[in-house]
Amino acid sequence: MIVLFTDFGLTGPYTGQVAAVLHRDAPDVPVISLFADAPSERPKPSAYLLAAYGAWFPAGTVLLCVVDPGVGSERRAAVAEAEGRIYVGPDNGLFDIVLRRAGDARLWEIIWHPGSLSPSFHGRDLFAPVAARLARGESLGALAQPVHDEQASRGWPDDLAEIVYVDHYGNAMTGLRGVLLPANAHLAVRGRRLARAATFSAVRPGEAFWYINSNGLAEIAVNGGRADQALGLAIGDRVIVES
Amino acid sequence: MIVLFTDFGLTGPYTGQVAAVLHRDAPDVPVISLFADAPSERPKPSAYLLAAYGAWFPAGTVLLCVVDPGVGSERRAAVAEAEGRIYVGPDNGLFDIVLRRAGDARLWEIIWHPGSLSPSFHGRDLFAPVAARLARGESLGALAQPVHDEQASRGWPDDLAEIVYVDHYGNAMTGLRGVLLPANAHLAVRGRRLARAATFSAVRPGEAFWYINSNGLAEIAVNGGRADQALGLAIGDRVIVES
Amino acid sequence: MIVLFTDFGLTGPYTGQVAAVLHRDAPDVPVISLFADAPSERPKPSAYLLAAYGAWFPAGTVLLCVVDPGVGSERRAAVAEAEGRIYVGPDNGLFDIVLRRAGDARLWEIIWHPGSLSPSFHGRDLFAPVAARLARGESLGALAQPVHDEQASRGWPDDLAEIVYVDHYGNAMTGLRGVLLPANAHLAVRGRRLARAATFSAVRPGEAFWYINSNGLAEIAVNGGRADQALGLAIGDRVIVES
Repeated sequence: MIVLFTDFGLTGPYTGQVAAVLHRDAPDVPVISLFADAPSERPKPSAYLLAAYGAWFPAGTVLLCVVDPGVGSERRAAVAEAEGRIYVGPDNGLFDIVLRRAGDARLWEIIWHPGSLSPSFHGRDLFAPVAARLARGESLGALAQPVHDEQASRGWPDDLAEIVYVDHYGNAMTGLRGVLLPANAHLAVRGRRLARAATFSAVRPGEAFWYINSNGLAEIAVNGGRADQALGLAIGDRVIVES
Repeated sequence: MIVLFTDFGLTGPYTGQVAAVLHRDAPDVPVISLFADAPSERPKPSAYLLAAYGAWFPAGTVLLCVVDPGVGSERRAAVAEAEGRIYVGPDNGLFDIVLRRAGDARLWEIIWHPGSLSPSFHGRDLFAPVAARLARGESLGALAQPVHDEQASRGWPDDLAEIVYVDHYGNAMTGLRGVLLPANAHLAVRGRRLARAATFSAVRPGEAFWYINSNGLAEIAVNGGRADQALGLAIGDRVIVES
Repeated sequence: MIVLFTDFGLTGPYTGQVAAVLHRDAPDVPVISLFADAPSERPKPSAYLLAAYGAWFPAGTVLLCVVDPGVGSERRAAVAEAEGRIYVGPDNGLFDIVLRRAGDARLWEIIWHPGSLSPSFHGRDLFAPVAARLARGESLGALAQPVHDEQASRGWPDDLAEIVYVDHYGNAMTGLRGVLLPANAHLAVRGRRLARAATFSAVRPGEAFWYINSNGLAEIAVNGGRADQALGLAIGDRVIVES
């Protein structure tokens, strides 16, 4: 299976062209769009979102990951191997958290070159063909070469105490893994201090709370309402863990 | 075929994870998203929309239906059988209108339990696996048990004289079946009184009217414009039938 | 492959019902959504967008194209053949630019009639069944008859000096083919005069520019920002080419 993690949107041409390339190059491999609205052109919050949601897929999954504000510049094109999954995309930090959390991570630089490469759409012309080739079983060694500087740190923390995503319902995911927080921790954000609840129906209608979401992230929500609007939350907002 | 009727949105992780589960558990069954923007967390208008649009699919279709504000509470997990179609989702009224309109309806309570169940995402962990198993031919009797209280009414009318959905063009669907309205009926909404037309091109540009849409619902529209903006319409607005 | 170019949106029922018809009538043919947000009910800008993006697909592709404000009126239902691709949709100008640019273009009028035809949803009831039949190999001559008035002009120019699409990132595509513009041309729009750059990273953060996008259109963008908001751009805005 090929899983898409991008900031392309679904309605315009980008996801469709990528899907067409994947079908052309790996016609028998199913394609699933996981996120088409990853934090737009922001690799840092995207990295924490990808680490949480990519880990849900079984070993053997190829994840095509494109949040790529530096497309056309000198940033490397990369493949990350972690816990049996393969991540293809720009080497701009997007894979840093996935690599750090895996016991057996390896980073590769793509050496395969397409016949033609648009300076603004490597997702279609470079990353999708490489993802398709890996998904149909081609050797990673034929497409990329190992790199050994994966310790070069961008200084990002293990968990990110910020809002990293606001979902369709207005719930605000943080970059914090819920199981690493004290059970009685409160989250402070935008001047509000929120207690933990097991799930929505455990609090009164209209009440804000935080809980551990279905992929393990600490998430801020309002029962029957939109947390983004009720609390004024957006991607990048700082969150403080209080006991 | 498995048809999705949800309020999950398409861009974020929810539809993608559900699609991944369906592929894992029923890899040969095609999946179509019918609505990913059913009235958010509102089973009542969703029930009338589902009754109108679900009936368009052939017998044998499995509809995975998740508009589930009570996820994690004690509401039952259900399967509804109606006119050869199978509906899987929460027992919160979402299937009430489908069941009422069918000659041969049966309601079941899901007894199958997944290995792990997120308190906030039964769509992925419970309903999708059950829908996949039914779509690949497993017996309903192995997954669910009949319940016999389907007459227990929520007091909802046969047709709902409210806006139940605003589409991509700004057209506002009601919960009224068009063929049950007098041919010369007018619809009054937000202080406006609208006559019926056969279709858009039968009225002047900019004129508001109602018509019977392609799935049988009375729908309010403006030729060449957006009815939601022109008339100030939103889901839940009352509609009055006048002759 | 069947490629969708529509203004239907993806979340509501329209794309899903079309996909269900395509699966019913051509179950083995993959379906890709290229645009679900083509300029809403505006065939003219859509025609330039379709010409640029349709040409990216290989010969043999069937493109189901529905931007159809006149549905239910007397406009013809058409099939256009151009450079080995087949375009199915309303004869309202949507195919004019495709036909004009092709060396071997032919226009056909659909004579096939569905069993039932909604006056408001020919995409589902007429165009999708025809597209499916063509994609599975049925003869065009059995479904349509040649028409010989394709020279009847709507007076549209070869290239359209207007904004024809605003993408997910806020970049504004024009209907101008970039290779036909002088290399040192400037584009003037909304009182701003923009120089050309190779790609985003060639200009300073926050700077507006134009470039040739990955499908050949001259496109207005801002490095690290949204051109639509920064410059106040919308579909239909005039663009002036200055040297």
